[in-house]
Amino acid sequence: MKKRVSIKDIAEKVGVSTALVSYVLNGKEREARVGQEIAKKIRKVAADLNYQPNLIARGLKFGRTNTLGLIVADISNPFFATLARSIELEAQKNGYTVLFGSSDEQLDKSQNLINTFLSRQVDGLIITPVAGSQSQIEELKTKGIPFVLMDRGFSDLETSVVVTDNHEAMYSAVKLLTDNGYRKIGMIAYDTPLTHMQDRIKGYKDALKDAGIRFQSKWLKKVPFEDYKERVARAVLQLIDKKSQPVDALVFATNSISVQALKIIHAQKLVVPDDLGIISFDESDAFEFFYTSITYIKQNLNEISKKAVQTLLKNINSVTPKVERVIVPSTIVVGVSSGKKLKEKVVV
Amino acid sequence: MKKRVSIKDIAEKVGVSTALVSYVLNGKEREARVGQEIAKKIRKVAADLNYQPNLIARGLKFGRTNTLGLIVADISNPFFATLARSIELEAQKNGYTVLFGSSDEQLDKSQNLINTFLSRQVDGLIITPVAGSQSQIEELKTKGIPFVLMDRGFSDLETSVVVTDNHEAMYSAVKLLTDNGYRKIGMIAYDTPLTHMQDRIKGYKDALKDAGIRFQSKWLKKVPFEDYKERVARAVLQLIDKKSQPVDALVFATNSISVQALKIIHAQKLVVPDDLGIISFDESDAFEFFYTSITYIKQNLNEISKKAVQTLLKNINSVTPKVERVIVPSTIVVGVSSGKKLKEKVVV
Repeated sequence: MKKRVSIKDIAEKVGVSTALVSYVLNGKEREARVGQEIAKKIRKVAADLNYQPNLIARGLKFGRTNTLGLIVADISNPFFATLARSIELEAQKNGYTVLFGSSDEQLDKSQNLINTFLSRQVDGLIITPVAGSQSQIEELKTKGIPFVLMDRGFSDLETSVVVTDNHEAMYSAVKLLTDNGYRKIGMIAYDTPLTHMQDRIKGYKDALKDAGIRFQSKWLKKVPFEDYKERVARAVLQLIDKKSQPVDALVFATNSISVQALKIIHAQKLVVPDDLGIISFDESDAFEFFYTSITYIKQNLNEISKKAVQTLLKNINSVTPKVERVIVPSTIVVGVSSGKKLKEKVVV
Repeated sequence: MKKRVSIKDIAEKVGVSTALVSYVLNGKEREARVGQEIAKKIRKVAADLNYQPNLIARGLKFGRTNTLGLIVADISNPFFATLARSIELEAQKNGYTVLFGSSDEQLDKSQNLINTFLSRQVDGLIITPVAGSQSQIEELKTKGIPFVLMDRGFSDLETSVVVTDNHEAMYSAVKLLTDNGYRKIGMIAYDTPLTHMQDRIKGYKDALKDAGIRFQSKWLKKVPFEDYKERVARAVLQLIDKKSQPVDALVFATNSISVQALKIIHAQKLVVPDDLGIISFDESDAFEFFYTSITYIKQNLNEISKKAVQTLLKNINSVTPKVERVIVPSTIVVGVSSGKKLKEKVVV
């Protein structure tokens, strides 16, 4: 690796002081009363030597690196990759670049990433927090590190957070199903105390209640992140089992759950939406080839990312940062899978 | 934003010099003959104040930031997101963190990202280069910036590069089709001079030749990155048009092309593999719901990423970096879509 060209190299070549070079390259030759001739020469030598200003060193002077740290569950998951893309764009607009890392929903990885990013002097962090990481987040508060949680938060911890309208979105989805005549509606969700999942489950239950349907605990299946594929498969088979009052519709709390569930529904030759109504939270490329179009909740990922960066930058630039809770509305993209108004079904 | 705790803060609180604190926190108290009692006190105060060592400042002393810059076409594309994930892991293993950015296959965005990352003092760059960006890459060589190209390179520029065995992979795929009795094999590829696409096209042509089939130029359709969806649809319709000697098999140069083409094939009610044999370069989640399993070339993305980081680190740590060309073998995952040995079809 060649040594980088420094101000000293330019000064030596031109035969002036490093201070003079610094004045010129920072556009302050007037204040320093540098002659036009010599300023021109300094600029030419800098260009000839391919001099790159060291923004990191300059940033350190002002306690800034103009770098943000982004911690997602898994950057290879299209959901987080899409968020990362918009975060990159919004950060760029504001003169920031982004370091990224994946926590794999694991506490130790999350802590390692936080430590690494802090020792890299990031100006702030955007985090999709891991379940149980309250103490890690609390430590950031104590240290006064600017950060914002994204996609999920903690009910027992007051922090800045940008989330989708999880309760409202799932409520509307289930209401669409009850309006269309479905009465025995099941849900498959991840088993986690994180607010985004809790809010979706509550939205599901509240919609049932408001439709006058008594929730049955066997309708709600919670699967762990680990080996979720197999667990989703088992959950679907239990929910549609004809021997024990099967459900007539299903909502899935994430797109990864939806894809696995649809594979089983397909293999079991159930007809969607006649045998079973379906709504997914988030879309998937895989939906394109399912034999019927899938109704899904479409989060505004672009808006979530933008708001996350904006909220973080407000924190970074404020002497007395405020805790801000931003809820971004989503929409329902209605396909065939959620059925039509089937009047005859309404009579139970 | 609170000011970060510095060595000076610790020194003031303990009532010693900053040099002493620095010795202790860098584990050099023996060399500096610091008393055990005072070393212990310094460590305790550092912990109490939540002191984070400033790796950036430390790195600058040695001309290193332990940061890599990653430039992909689009981080929200699952292909690049998967590469990014493995790069993150391999970088982490070596004590590096990764800045990322998306070029959108655009020259100006690519140049902007290179400039930004260089002024952030990255130790090196991993780049999936944009078509026509030779001069940008050449400038990196001139400046002596360590870098490695990934996924694609330039035939007219000697650089370190890590790519899949594009020619070999597509050759094997087309050979599988000819072995299975297909004779009129078409290809849809992107219209770009980048080596990865050129090598795939050459592999396709060479396999036809070695099977004694004369390539017909109307079999090869090149579509632009922009509005590729519509162009792929049109290409498929032309290739399968019954009025003008339709093809009996198709290979697709990328997974994005495959998904669009399969939609049209599905809509046209062609039966795969009887009416049309199919092989894709790279897989897609969407394949899971196509009515038959798709044969595809599986690149070893994990190995490509690992080798990219390793090659780059070798460059960074070497005084006389060598140009290295790494070719990573891929495999073919055989599904139903590429047909079976149909002896009767061999007789044309």
